[in-house]
Amino acid sequence: MPAPTSDRLAELDAFLVELNAAAAGAILPLFRADHGLIDKGGAKGFDPVTEADKGAERAIRQLIAERYPEHGVIGEEYGEDRPDAEWVWVLDPVDGTRAFIAGLPLWCTLIGLRHEGRPVLGSIGQSYLGELYIGHAGGSRLISRGVSRPLKVRPCPRLTDAIIATTDPEMCFTGAELGAWTQVRAAARLARLGCDAYAYAMVAAGTMDMVIEAGLQSWDIEAAIPVVEGAGGLVTDWRGQPVGDHGGQIAIAGDRACLEEALVALRRSAL
Amino acid sequence: MPAPTSDRLAELDAFLVELNAAAAGAILPLFRADHGLIDKGGAKGFDPVTEADKGAERAIRQLIAERYPEHGVIGEEYGEDRPDAEWVWVLDPVDGTRAFIAGLPLWCTLIGLRHEGRPVLGSIGQSYLGELYIGHAGGSRLISRGVSRPLKVRPCPRLTDAIIATTDPEMCFTGAELGAWTQVRAAARLARLGCDAYAYAMVAAGTMDMVIEAGLQSWDIEAAIPVVEGAGGLVTDWRGQPVGDHGGQIAIAGDRACLEEALVALRRSAL
Repeated sequence: MPAPTSDRLAELDAFLVELNAAAAGAILPLFRADHGLIDKGGAKGFDPVTEADKGAERAIRQLIAERYPEHGVIGEEYGEDRPDAEWVWVLDPVDGTRAFIAGLPLWCTLIGLRHEGRPVLGSIGQSYLGELYIGHAGGSRLISRGVSRPLKVRPCPRLTDAIIATTDPEMCFTGAELGAWTQVRAAARLARLGCDAYAYAMVAAGTMDMVIEAGLQSWDIEAAIPVVEGAGGLVTDWRGQPVGDHGGQIAIAGDRACLEEALVALRRSAL
Repeated sequence: MPAPTSDRLAELDAFLVELNAAAAGAILPLFRADHGLIDKGGAKGFDPVTEADKGAERAIRQLIAERYPEHGVIGEEYGEDRPDAEWVWVLDPVDGTRAFIAGLPLWCTLIGLRHEGRPVLGSIGQSYLGELYIGHAGGSRLISRGVSRPLKVRPCPRLTDAIIATTDPEMCFTGAELGAWTQVRAAARLARLGCDAYAYAMVAAGTMDMVIEAGLQSWDIEAAIPVVEGAGGLVTDWRGQPVGDHGGQIAIAGDRACLEEALVALRRSAL
């Protein structure tokens, strides 16, 4: 199959903006309000889900079913429909549900689109901030409070100059992964915690240099790949290989030289 | 000295809103822009300061000098003027400079006011979000995008139900402090990292239950005391005693019973 034409991508890009608006409409009334928290973790530990997650995913799925009934959908809350279709949407309606229930405005709506199994379009939306980071091979941009501007990673060839991030070392990493993170952190200039997928947007925007995560699901990362790559950055696993459709251990970087330095430590703990 | 009259507090409260607007005017043009980062840490490690920190503190100090030349000022960037005056302003123009330089919108402007050594008025401002959390003994409120609403902590008598926060366990805690944090975290429902002073506002707003920090300076915490107490919450050291004017180890909670449970662990590592 050839890559999608730019006309086709432009049409889907406009639809992606619509999907984000629909998600925002379902999420914002429940932010810092009665969001119907349920713990779906049980014996495995606290795993929150809210009516915002579910309502946003329903709103997105409904629009897709109306406009593109032949497209597939994979979502965190409502599972898979036609996961082998030519076009498949991969959704995390509220990435960072923990931040959401704590009232912190760094949760994101992640919406990615695969064509023939390859991520070709994606968005990271933070509707309380009025920010939508959106990208594809033709370039990435931030639509912020009605104004659009291009996104571009920044050069940072040395890890010692890098601002890096992960969400929660103790919660997200195994022992071996924690060792690798600790090595990379010790070499970096500055580490930030607690950002979830919003940190990916910061790499695309050129205010951070690298994000390191592990244990991700496909819907935690796929939407970010076109945004980061369209801004000139890189998304790989901890061996430096393409991520594929399975999530797992992820490194996102703006500068290849910086990524390579971190991979020296990450490869030792790669699964 | 008697406590300040409510007329006097209302006048100073209105002035505090002005101070926040002046700080925002100095900070926002430099957020995600060329902010003139300097590392003032040297051999002690990375300790960033930017033109936003300095410009905002200058703007605040100038307004105070014009309107209340007899008042004292203690600020992170420009030191002490008349620290023994009847009224003393305690400033951190950009709390969370690390978040600021990473492009993350959770830095805050902290402005507190002491009367005869006691914190009586304070604000936590996040001007990129358009949020100003402000409080005194008469009550606390959030002014958000032009709308004002009262702030109220929520009940959470059991630590096992609590959402708690600290900024960065590895960076901010000694070994003994890290042990205490780890015990409290293990008992809590959910922990969030990386929030700096914004987490104090979340306790006042009733979306988080407790914040635990250590190694604070007075300007990192004093502004938050009237905001949290005015919303019905508590600010103590790790022995459960009033914080005083020296910063240090801090626990902020919405519910006294939850705080007492955490203090069982925190007291063992109290300085």
